[in-house]
Amino acid sequence: MSEHRQPEAELPEGTSSDRRITALADGVFAIVMTLLVLGVEVPQVPDEQIADRLLHEVLLLWPRIAAYAVSFLVLGIYWMGHHTQFHFMRGVDRTALWINIFFFMGVCLVPFTTRLVSDYHGQEVAVTLYALNLIAIDLLLLLHWRYAARADLLKPETGRAEMRHATRQILIGVALFAAAIAVAFVSPRASLAVILAVPVLHILPGPIHIHWTR
Amino acid sequence: MSEHRQPEAELPEGTSSDRRITALADGVFAIVMTLLVLGVEVPQVPDEQIADRLLHEVLLLWPRIAAYAVSFLVLGIYWMGHHTQFHFMRGVDRTALWINIFFFMGVCLVPFTTRLVSDYHGQEVAVTLYALNLIAIDLLLLLHWRYAARADLLKPETGRAEMRHATRQILIGVALFAAAIAVAFVSPRASLAVILAVPVLHILPGPIHIHWTR
Amino acid sequence: MSEHRQPEAELPEGTSSDRRITALADGVFAIVMTLLVLGVEVPQVPDEQIADRLLHEVLLLWPRIAAYAVSFLVLGIYWMGHHTQFHFMRGVDRTALWINIFFFMGVCLVPFTTRLVSDYHGQEVAVTLYALNLIAIDLLLLLHWRYAARADLLKPETGRAEMRHATRQILIGVALFAAAIAVAFVSPRASLAVILAVPVLHILPGPIHIHWTR
Amino acid sequence: MSEHRQPEAELPEGTSSDRRITALADGVFAIVMTLLVLGVEVPQVPDEQIADRLLHEVLLLWPRIAAYAVSFLVLGIYWMGHHTQFHFMRGVDRTALWINIFFFMGVCLVPFTTRLVSDYHGQEVAVTLYALNLIAIDLLLLLHWRYAARADLLKPETGRAEMRHATRQILIGVALFAAAIAVAFVSPRASLAVILAVPVLHILPGPIHIHWTR
Repeated sequence: MSEHRQPEAELPEGTSSDRRITALADGVFAIVMTLLVLGVEVPQVPDEQIADRLLHEVLLLWPRIAAYAVSFLVLGIYWMGHHTQFHFMRGVDRTALWINIFFFMGVCLVPFTTRLVSDYHGQEVAVTLYALNLIAIDLLLLLHWRYAARADLLKPETGRAEMRHATRQILIGVALFAAAIAVAFVSPRASLAVILAVPVLHILPGPIHIHWTR
Repeated sequence: MSEHRQPEAELPEGTSSDRRITALADGVFAIVMTLLVLGVEVPQVPDEQIADRLLHEVLLLWPRIAAYAVSFLVLGIYWMGHHTQFHFMRGVDRTALWINIFFFMGVCLVPFTTRLVSDYHGQEVAVTLYALNLIAIDLLLLLHWRYAARADLLKPETGRAEMRHATRQILIGVALFAAAIAVAFVSPRASLAVILAVPVLHILPGPIHIHWTR
Repeated sequence: MSEHRQPEAELPEGTSSDRRITALADGVFAIVMTLLVLGVEVPQVPDEQIADRLLHEVLLLWPRIAAYAVSFLVLGIYWMGHHTQFHFMRGVDRTALWINIFFFMGVCLVPFTTRLVSDYHGQEVAVTLYALNLIAIDLLLLLHWRYAARADLLKPETGRAEMRHATRQILIGVALFAAAIAVAFVSPRASLAVILAVPVLHILPGPIHIHWTR
Repeated sequence: MSEHRQPEAELPEGTSSDRRITALADGVFAIVMTLLVLGVEVPQVPDEQIADRLLHEVLLLWPRIAAYAVSFLVLGIYWMGHHTQFHFMRGVDRTALWINIFFFMGVCLVPFTTRLVSDYHGQEVAVTLYALNLIAIDLLLLLHWRYAARADLLKPETGRAEMRHATRQILIGVALFAAAIAVAFVSPRASLAVILAVPVLHILPGPIHIHWTR
């Protein structure tokens, strides 16, 4: 669906469409990140037991706080990936806008799947659904990137190296989330450790970046 | 209410008013889209039944997840419609700002009517109220477009074809939502399928776009 | 606290501070408007009574829906007032930023006081607290305007007429909300009608605007 | 990690990255500020006791309203600090973006720790966790500032005085929050007064500003 064939798909002043879709993205990410914390509920302790049990009850929240932290960081990666793609794009068209909206749909499900995994962290069903949600978001990000390249929405100076790098980073995420699903059927908790590897690999200047820098 | 008659209605630097009302719009859409997922609650399964029943309970959430997806896509259409209108507008005045605020009021009701329809998807009352909410939003979008044309807020290069196309797209939505209400009294679930047709028609490059391209 | 006395209060590139404080404002208004709808809960009707009672139960929500609509419109007025003030301002300083934050504090309380008034619409305590919340927001908006004038933050072209008009509009709101408190001790429901008068007077091009146009 | 060593870390058009990270920041702050009010719940009073008890029940909400106000003002300080840092920065790199995301993680926890402290305001555990949350946010803000200076992300005109001033303001906050933890083991409520001192010192043009002005 190239731009010149569909008049209503043409948004000649791309910047303005860019600005609004990224404003929507920033809003969605800000809210989803913030809603995650609603999954961490303050424990209700009866008055006469507060002094003895409050600290204990708060410490029992650790799976929820861990799930909060992991989802927050993974969302940070997605936000950064989305941000980077728009950095290389010179505009959007109607199809790209719809890919964005499906991407947001996946992102907005994260508070639900995060809550599922923090309520049932020992269950492969919960871990699998969480990982599937993350894979779906990654694939939509990949689709967005591929579509932008095919529909000639990238800035002319975007090199092949940048394009391959972005694709590879997304596929590493997908591979790890898929591995997490496989691991979940042996040990759901080990599976969560695999998922945690994704933000750790992204944040630490590790093998990926060294490879890239060469 | 033309701009020169009402001094306080004049917002000479239209860009700035544009930017703030679209920022408010993007914020409202981002939050409403995100709040929709709060309607999909994690099932509470007693500990001893988790292994057996968790997957089953999650699958039982399908009407809520379907309602989430449909409302999300319909909101995507409204966002795109609002975006397109501002693309063709050269500024806003006080009346246009108020039409926007009423439009947001309709949009902010969507999480409520979505929840109503996902709790009572077999009831014509719920489906009807949901469709009425969507019709009201569409009519406010139409009012906004018509007002912009009448109050000379459109960019001079906006052609008759664009104007008719935008109007027609909104009216197709209204017609389908109205049809959904009629169908609801026979079969509320068939009615939801009619509502689903709206995003499907918008997203797929189908008859509407072919018609337009000619 | 003039700008030249406090180095750290100087934000020389006013535009950038403007943009961020208005972005924060637009975010706060978007969220508060959207949260209002959480006060309208979907009624829980037992399965065997749904067919008979759902419509009736939804209709019983009218005080909540009315409170939603009134608060939404009043927030629309505040947003428009805040927007208009920034339209005439050439920048902000540290004090102006803090006045904004206190203004947001008042705005963020609206979902609470709205819920109070929709749960207890027959109680003068609830109506009074709601009206006091609205008065506090109005007074902070007035303080913002007065401070901007005194601290030389207005654009040079801002005329005396605009300044008096903005002040008068805010004071009319304060007077009506104060009247609503007085009426509340006779009839809390009549009091709500007085509050409703504020958005009605703002939206309809009525006596205020006619006076202004002369 | 300097900019020229890591190609993918380079975001040459810094303004655009600035704009998006500050948009995300403004969104996160707007939502966190607004979510705080969800901690103030409307009391549920049985119908026959409303007239007698509603005012009393609302007044019993004071610890929640106080916690709302304190957290709101502390968030205001953080927002202002973040805003000021970006005012002096000429761009961001990948590491700075990740520091921002960890900063947001701390900010998004505030509704949880605020709720903890308003539910258990007499408990040193609750006050300590709240103060630790605030310290963590402050330290991330400090890290952001230090990193910006080291990675050469500040505008060339940023003076030593500005840099020391920003650092000192953050450290005063950390010192007071740490003092609040010490005080909490004697009197949790006195501890909250120490925390309240932070916004009071920031807002009133007190010793800090006088020192600065000389």
